[in-house]
Amino acid sequence: MNLILLFPDDFVGDQRVRLTGRRREHVMHVHRAAVGDALVVGVGGGRIGTGEVTRIDEEALEMRVALREDPPKPLPLTLVLALPRPKVLNRVIAGATSLGVKRIYLINAWRVEKSYWKSPRLSEENLLAQRTLGLEQARDTTLPSIEIRRLFRPFVEEELPSIARDSLALVAHPTAVAECPRNAGQPVTLAIGPEGGFIDREISSLEGIGFTPVALGPRILRVETAVASVIGRLF
Amino acid sequence: MNLILLFPDDFVGDQRVRLTGRRREHVMHVHRAAVGDALVVGVGGGRIGTGEVTRIDEEALEMRVALREDPPKPLPLTLVLALPRPKVLNRVIAGATSLGVKRIYLINAWRVEKSYWKSPRLSEENLLAQRTLGLEQARDTTLPSIEIRRLFRPFVEEELPSIARDSLALVAHPTAVAECPRNAGQPVTLAIGPEGGFIDREISSLEGIGFTPVALGPRILRVETAVASVIGRLF
Repeated sequence: MNLILLFPDDFVGDQRVRLTGRRREHVMHVHRAAVGDALVVGVGGGRIGTGEVTRIDEEALEMRVALREDPPKPLPLTLVLALPRPKVLNRVIAGATSLGVKRIYLINAWRVEKSYWKSPRLSEENLLAQRTLGLEQARDTTLPSIEIRRLFRPFVEEELPSIARDSLALVAHPTAVAECPRNAGQPVTLAIGPEGGFIDREISSLEGIGFTPVALGPRILRVETAVASVIGRLF
Repeated sequence: MNLILLFPDDFVGDQRVRLTGRRREHVMHVHRAAVGDALVVGVGGGRIGTGEVTRIDEEALEMRVALREDPPKPLPLTLVLALPRPKVLNRVIAGATSLGVKRIYLINAWRVEKSYWKSPRLSEENLLAQRTLGLEQARDTTLPSIEIRRLFRPFVEEELPSIARDSLALVAHPTAVAECPRNAGQPVTLAIGPEGGFIDREISSLEGIGFTPVALGPRILRVETAVASVIGRLF
């Protein structure tokens, strides 16, 4: 936790916050903070600064906060991900959030196993927790949006064209002839398929609305590794 | 497992292999392979091809293999990592391996907690298992070397200069003025510090032998995310 993320409900005064639960525990037992210590804090969707610990008791931890800086600039990337297997979903969401992604779509694809859609990891609560971890890691404050789309075709035909408008639209495809561009210098919409990749018909649908298939190199990467690597290349 | 990694002991004939244990289980229960199916295989340190399943019984699975392709080219990157916390070590090793890194040094640094050195995850056996997972994921065959160095100063003064010779030598440092270069076009030696970073004295030591501190962006990334992202940027 490189930043303690604060929400409106935490404020008990103009510059005073009161934390309970996970954040209090973390500050006490990992940061081992004492009264007088200053920690990096940020307000959800807002600015970053320091929180000076003013009180710790068995219920809560109080800080006086001073917010001085804007959060890092959002990464101009929209990620369209075939729903990853539950085991990796958390790492993908927290990882993409830590990299500065602000818009994520989790979509269906032919090779997404149906059972993945029943995973409790898709709950609002868990997706919020993973994004929070990503922001706390990265020292950022703005939660990415996550939209879930269970039907590939209507999403691609009706929604994705306007999502990808005015951006470089790419779909990662192992057998693509084109290499992924470097240093895009413009907003990007990037679609990444499931394990085994998008099937030809899905690639055709995406090409039909202006997506270019690009290869990410000779190796097959796990989705969280691919997302980080391609972001390093594009931005 | 996008490739089944074979070792000399697996061969029971010129082109015949016999698998037991984890790989047999995986081929049977995840690939759900039957006699006649062809799977991607590769020989440790060698070529890649297909294995046609010729027999499955309760003890073993046999394949006839034909090796036709060279593995992907190694990434010309030497990673020098302050020992990560045990919880993330496996992912860092498997991830770096999947990205094509072939030389990894795990070193001490001021902010590496002493307890990390006692982790069973540092066993030969576990480090081999994680690298194998990385190769199987990426469809590669050449295991990276992993060297462990418990003393920072002798390593940096006596060994690292020759390791980094003829390469672009970089150390990731959040407060560096220089940005990490793109598309290096030459071999790179990259040092990445522990959580909280290398301390100033360590950065000075590295600068003293020709390393340039570079920033990896405004966000603090977990080491496995940083490794993937910086590789995407550099290669």
